[in-house]
Amino acid sequence: FPSKQPQVQTTIFTKMSALALEHGALNLSQGFPGFDCAPALQELLQHYAKGHNQYAPMAGVPALRQSLATKTATFYNIPVEADSEVTIVSGATEALFAAIHCCVSPGDEVIMFDPSYDAYDPIVRLAGGVPIHIPLKASSNFAIDWSSVAAKITPRTRVIMVNSPHNPTGAVWSMVDLDAFAEVVKGTNILIVSDEVYEHIVFDGAQHASVLLHPELRKRSFVCGSFGKTYHITGWKIGYCIAPAFLTAEFRKLHQWVTFSSATPLQYALADYLKEPAHYLGLSHFYQKKRDLFASQFVGSRWKVLPSAGSFFQCLDYSAISGEKEVDLADRLTREIKVASIPVSVFYETDPGDKILRFCFAKEDDVLLEAAKRLVSLS
Amino acid sequence: FPSKQPQVQTTIFTKMSALALEHGALNLSQGFPGFDCAPALQELLQHYAKGHNQYAPMAGVPALRQSLATKTATFYNIPVEADSEVTIVSGATEALFAAIHCCVSPGDEVIMFDPSYDAYDPIVRLAGGVPIHIPLKASSNFAIDWSSVAAKITPRTRVIMVNSPHNPTGAVWSMVDLDAFAEVVKGTNILIVSDEVYEHIVFDGAQHASVLLHPELRKRSFVCGSFGKTYHITGWKIGYCIAPAFLTAEFRKLHQWVTFSSATPLQYALADYLKEPAHYLGLSHFYQKKRDLFASQFVGSRWKVLPSAGSFFQCLDYSAISGEKEVDLADRLTREIKVASIPVSVFYETDPGDKILRFCFAKEDDVLLEAAKRLVSLS
Ligand SMILES: CSCCC(=O)C(=O)O
Ligand SMILES: CSCCC(=O)C(=O)O
Repeated sequence: FPSKQPQVQTTIFTKMSALALEHGALNLSQGFPGFDCAPALQELLQHYAKGHNQYAPMAGVPALRQSLATKTATFYNIPVEADSEVTIVSGATEALFAAIHCCVSPGDEVIMFDPSYDAYDPIVRLAGGVPIHIPLKASSNFAIDWSSVAAKITPRTRVIMVNSPHNPTGAVWSMVDLDAFAEVVKGTNILIVSDEVYEHIVFDGAQHASVLLHPELRKRSFVCGSFGKTYHITGWKIGYCIAPAFLTAEFRKLHQWVTFSSATPLQYALADYLKEPAHYLGLSHFYQKKRDLFASQFVGSRWKVLPSAGSFFQCLDYSAISGEKEVDLADRLTREIKVASIPVSVFYETDPGDKILRFCFAKEDDVLLEAAKRLVSLS
Repeated sequence: FPSKQPQVQTTIFTKMSALALEHGALNLSQGFPGFDCAPALQELLQHYAKGHNQYAPMAGVPALRQSLATKTATFYNIPVEADSEVTIVSGATEALFAAIHCCVSPGDEVIMFDPSYDAYDPIVRLAGGVPIHIPLKASSNFAIDWSSVAAKITPRTRVIMVNSPHNPTGAVWSMVDLDAFAEVVKGTNILIVSDEVYEHIVFDGAQHASVLLHPELRKRSFVCGSFGKTYHITGWKIGYCIAPAFLTAEFRKLHQWVTFSSATPLQYALADYLKEPAHYLGLSHFYQKKRDLFASQFVGSRWKVLPSAGSFFQCLDYSAISGEKEVDLADRLTREIKVASIPVSVFYETDPGDKILRFCFAKEDDVLLEAAKRLVSLS
């Protein structure tokens, strides 16, 4: 049997989480909270476990689409149409998959910035698209040089994929980035797939610069989001796509053949839970304390703490400690000191040779302290 | 914006369910139970709503894979490996999508039998494949002429898609069909995608002839299943694929980029619930009574009851009543007598000009009686 995708490997998240389990390691690799969601959300699910067990409409339960449209409109102070601009899907991964597949034809080029989330490149290839990777440098704090982006645009450029707050680096865009980005796409037919799953986790008083806020970007964007990171329910796999009506129509054509619809009881629980802004407004503060707690443990050690302006990831540079390759060190730390992380190099098309590991700090404080202690003991 | 899929329409299920809602019609169109799942299953979900809310492993929660492997092995009396042969996905639609996309390359031919479930053709096209439709005739009770299948095989034939019990006709395969099918594929590299979501709904004492039962078929089959129809939870969107290890490895490559993993609390609830065979062994009997109740109402009317040997669908021929096209009558019945159905013609590449509507009898008895009464009043 000739494999259609001989080059495709198991995702790094599956690999590292399995390795962490095998070695009883503290799992700071795959990005998920080490604690449960709020009891109020559990109780809503318990409530809707009765009588809400048949197919949801293909585009999503109307009450959830309305709650999400209202929340988004309120939070960003822009109008969002529940009927024509919002689609509920089975996790942000499906949102990214359907967005790319509804508009990328064989030979179309899709620009993405490395380090890029590991699903972007294979999703583009599966659609027959050609991923164009633009590497960002740790030394310039992963900032985008917009003139170099303009230079990569060709008549075949169909989509630019962006992600802020950024996984794995924690870099966060400002409104200035949005303006620069808008200048690059203005006057073109280029579409945007914007992964904003960490929209409610930005630090130090900053506001998330959603592409929804910029009319020139918004009118051409599929905004892919998720409730998983915001409400500590990565296992619910309920995500969404917000896009202008003409793009939403295309997006739904894909969604209806990929999964058709998403879990009904979970959608009803979220429809209610979303109505209370307090359920997400405190999240940045909550995670900032964790970032600060974790990062502060490395003061005076040979681990170099890189900036994390958003997301729940902290990158640490270990070049003062070891010359090992990132994948080798991540592997060894899991086996020896029993702390699992993600090597940032796996998010690059071409390994830049950095010495950086990503740690997820969405964990209980004692886990963060113990993990940091083990890491510091090494240096 | 040039649509990548200008020809793609909203699925018939979305359309008819929306029309039914708009006109307050009894909805016998989209296939879902008009009653809730068992309280015991609801209680399991309520239990697992606490503490089971983060990512499931990509291949599925191990306990559910084990329960499903055990159930399948016991029910069919064949070995199934939970680790290497079972993958949990977000509904049978995702299973079909990932199975086709992991093995169909541009230009590959995929044979399917019409009437065919409406997702098969677009899923194949999205993979760049070429759907080859073999129409079956109502007049020969939708039986497959295997010699005509053999004649359709070319060097580009990659997959044959099959479905028993069959949606929309309720036709059911016997072991004789499996043997004939095996003769056709023996000695070729053709793979099989077998949609068996109605495996536990077969009538009149028959046993479901799963492709798993035939070694020549099993070794090349992706068996796509779902818990939705078996446990009255179409809205949970938890499905699965059972396939030999070498095909499962390919399948998972797709699944990990399509949705990555499926809803954790739902998987845990099912892992427990599957352990009790009584939860599915009575299902055929339960639905046979509904079939008989519904079908018996048309005796002496001009509706002709076609055979339904499995699934929860009853096809009715109305050629003695009206010369209207199927789509037109389905539309009119929904508006005028307020009974929604599905025109079987939409499942054909080329409308055969039959006069057949499909009715879902997974409804409360009083709903079935009232729908039948309205339909008979028309004739
Ligand atoms: C879908 S598993 C990966 C979770 C995640 O977003 C990450 O760890 O980066
Ligand atoms: C995915 S909605 C369609 C449900 C169904 O299987 C049918 O009605 O045929």
